[in-house]
Amino acid sequence: MAYRLARTVAFQGERGAFSYAAAIKLLGADIRDLPCPTFRDVFESLKSGKVNFAVLPIENTLHGSVHENYDHLLEYAFPICGETNVRIAHNLIVMPGVRFRDIRKALSHPVALNQCREFFKKNKRIEPVSFYDTAGSVKMLSERSEPDTAAIASETAAKIYQGEILRRNIEDDRQNFTRFFLLTKQTRSTHVGSGNWKTSLAFSTENAAGALFRAMACFALRDLNLTKIESRPLRGKPWEYLFYVDLIGRADDSPVQNALNNLREMTRFVRVLGSYRPTS
Amino acid sequence: MAYRLARTVAFQGERGAFSYAAAIKLLGADIRDLPCPTFRDVFESLKSGKVNFAVLPIENTLHGSVHENYDHLLEYAFPICGETNVRIAHNLIVMPGVRFRDIRKALSHPVALNQCREFFKKNKRIEPVSFYDTAGSVKMLSERSEPDTAAIASETAAKIYQGEILRRNIEDDRQNFTRFFLLTKQTRSTHVGSGNWKTSLAFSTENAAGALFRAMACFALRDLNLTKIESRPLRGKPWEYLFYVDLIGRADDSPVQNALNNLREMTRFVRVLGSYRPTS
Repeated sequence: MAYRLARTVAFQGERGAFSYAAAIKLLGADIRDLPCPTFRDVFESLKSGKVNFAVLPIENTLHGSVHENYDHLLEYAFPICGETNVRIAHNLIVMPGVRFRDIRKALSHPVALNQCREFFKKNKRIEPVSFYDTAGSVKMLSERSEPDTAAIASETAAKIYQGEILRRNIEDDRQNFTRFFLLTKQTRSTHVGSGNWKTSLAFSTENAAGALFRAMACFALRDLNLTKIESRPLRGKPWEYLFYVDLIGRADDSPVQNALNNLREMTRFVRVLGSYRPTS
Repeated sequence: MAYRLARTVAFQGERGAFSYAAAIKLLGADIRDLPCPTFRDVFESLKSGKVNFAVLPIENTLHGSVHENYDHLLEYAFPICGETNVRIAHNLIVMPGVRFRDIRKALSHPVALNQCREFFKKNKRIEPVSFYDTAGSVKMLSERSEPDTAAIASETAAKIYQGEILRRNIEDDRQNFTRFFLLTKQTRSTHVGSGNWKTSLAFSTENAAGALFRAMACFALRDLNLTKIESRPLRGKPWEYLFYVDLIGRADDSPVQNALNNLREMTRFVRVLGSYRPTS
């Protein structure tokens, strides 16, 4: 790892959230973390200098891209300096002493509850109960232990709040991954990860037939490999689109630089969101 | 409207959910509705013949594409026969007699609560409380009225459960829209809407540099306008991608047919998800 900054990191959710697991994967276990209620708070914490890093979910294999965070990336313009994927594995967690047969309620975020439907079908005496956060539900149990209540959250959350995992991987779909970006205010020599360099960018075109095709040509002519492309209608501008593109290569590489120059000629707006190496 | 089928329609969530509002926009107020707990249940209801139509959210301006429903579209292969957009407007709803100054709690789905943060900042005495569903929170209040509790949900939910809207449009972002598809088992002459024809398709390519570029050429060469393109990594197949494309035109039109034939030559898999006219 090439970073030299103190590993202070902001993320959305409670300690033990999947964003927190991503922060540890990206920066190691020895971090000073700042849990934030909202994504905007995470960006503001980085802006104000409270932290040197921020970890944000950017897309999920079931739920798609987090456009809200793309909006914030464009607004705050902090460069991406790392990337990782976290598998969303849900566990049934209790405070020590609670037995499986005692459980009548399981607390978690409704999205997580909804991803464990098979578990609830098989265990009809356990009622799913909505809570504001997955890790927060374990935290709550650790503060006031309830003998008939479990929480559904990550393994990390179980560890942090001294919970006990009674059932592992109770999610219906094992192929549920969230991709996270690591952001920093420092642009140079602050990179984590060891995979092949990737670059993320955003650009917009008017929707003349073929405008996207010409934009794609900038990459294809240089044999650059794209790993993501996504269009998004521009608010209040019918027929204009914002595109998100990820490609293999570093923004400093000359083929990428040439492609970006070429792209600037034929689009209204191009922004490099960062070059980074994946952490596996 | 060209449909002749009885307007029985399945959707996910409680009556009054945004999917229900979409169903009414698409099929008129005179529908027989079947609320379902999950998206899969909605597809199963259509498959089993319990309903003639299904309404499914496919993307949201803040939260991106609902990949889960794209997966179901590919699996069940019901054609899309309509499309509409619904603005996600949140309202503070109480049972008649409850005054604003009495409210101490507001129930809703955490995603909705999180979209009303400014409201909660300004009204600190009102505590946000997680619930499994937006419309479900109004339904619950209608069943056991609580003098200090409100729900946050759609105007439709307020009407259905005889709630009273005390504050309208308390969402932070007015530009929050969800796009819905109407599905049917009938392929011919079952279309709603009156906008210009659109066609949605899915295809996959190996990620040779330029594979996407060649695919795009099929449309660009025929001056076909794309309104959406999105890549999605194929599970368990590194470097292979599924693409979602929407274009202006009908799959029966000869330029679209030619483009599709051309696309089939240079991709592994092409599926037309349907041609439909938007309902505004």
